[in-house]
Amino acid sequence: MVDQLIAHIRKFSTVEEADLILLESLIRRKTYQKKELVLPAGHRCHYQHFIVSGCMRSFFINNKGVEQIVNFGIENWWMTDYDSFVNERASALNIQALEECEVLSINKLGFDELIRKSSGLANYFRIILEKRHIADQRRIQYMFNLTGEEIYDTFFNLNPEFIQRVPQYMLASYLGFTPEFLSKIRKKKSQGLS
Amino acid sequence: MVDQLIAHIRKFSTVEEADLILLESLIRRKTYQKKELVLPAGHRCHYQHFIVSGCMRSFFINNKGVEQIVNFGIENWWMTDYDSFVNERASALNIQALEECEVLSINKLGFDELIRKSSGLANYFRIILEKRHIADQRRIQYMFNLTGEEIYDTFFNLNPEFIQRVPQYMLASYLGFTPEFLSKIRKKKSQGLS
Repeated sequence: MVDQLIAHIRKFSTVEEADLILLESLIRRKTYQKKELVLPAGHRCHYQHFIVSGCMRSFFINNKGVEQIVNFGIENWWMTDYDSFVNERASALNIQALEECEVLSINKLGFDELIRKSSGLANYFRIILEKRHIADQRRIQYMFNLTGEEIYDTFFNLNPEFIQRVPQYMLASYLGFTPEFLSKIRKKKSQGLS
Repeated sequence: MVDQLIAHIRKFSTVEEADLILLESLIRRKTYQKKELVLPAGHRCHYQHFIVSGCMRSFFINNKGVEQIVNFGIENWWMTDYDSFVNERASALNIQALEECEVLSINKLGFDELIRKSSGLANYFRIILEKRHIADQRRIQYMFNLTGEEIYDTFFNLNPEFIQRVPQYMLASYLGFTPEFLSKIRKKKSQGLS
């Protein structure tokens, strides 16, 4: 399991053997069952989770009492409520396993120690944040600008694997659609109308 | 000017004197006039700009041909198109000075050198990214969940200074409102109706 994380780290940063020994000593291995709640909203998010296998979602209950999905995560993605993790406040988000998930998790104390002691790992986590910030900014721009169909196409092109793995009503929630609207777009696509 | 940036860095990270000498050697000082375009969309964003004084916005022209504001920046904020800066691709965003702006700018080569040579500065830029990611994620959640009035209240509470500094039609664009809708909310507030 740790090999997969190390390979991911080495894609983005140069690390020493000692950094990886420290990392291994601070990481917790855990398996979450399908539908298990990894983090309930209202609690402190103590961990960042690196997904070795499986799929997760983060969501909140909106003002209308309906689940609103904010993020999905699959293999090689980190899942957390960053605001809760960093600022040590109650999480606004629930995190839930959508499939059986093997994860490597690091808590705030461990994370701070890694950042302090290893410039290579600090650099890796900085690059992960760069990628998140870029993805978030693109998403904000899409939300302002694209039609429903364009949002679907953009998401499908960036993340084709999700279309198969995630229930349609969850995909609809993430994209800000009603399930009926998503179904209409997919029907149109399958008939080759656009 | 540089003292202001150093004070900002020291709020978040521990840096050595040598780091700051390196930083000063890599930074460009520049003043942009009110309304001057700092970055035109379609060009590479070569710089991250630390705003010493003044106010900027980033925006794109949406599918309807209308300016859509994505971000504002004021004193002690960094402005850039991060996707363009990091991935060395054409910027999707324009950046424009809304007031006369004094900025300290660092280009990609200089930034990479800072990150490589100074763990204290790398840590500072990682923390800035954490703050951006948290702000982006909150904004995505608001966009999904809050009513127009709640979005206005949230923005006003977080950034009261913008209400005075930024033209109302720009504020409306940033919040995803029509100018008429923003004007209606403000009228209601001034009459103490909510």
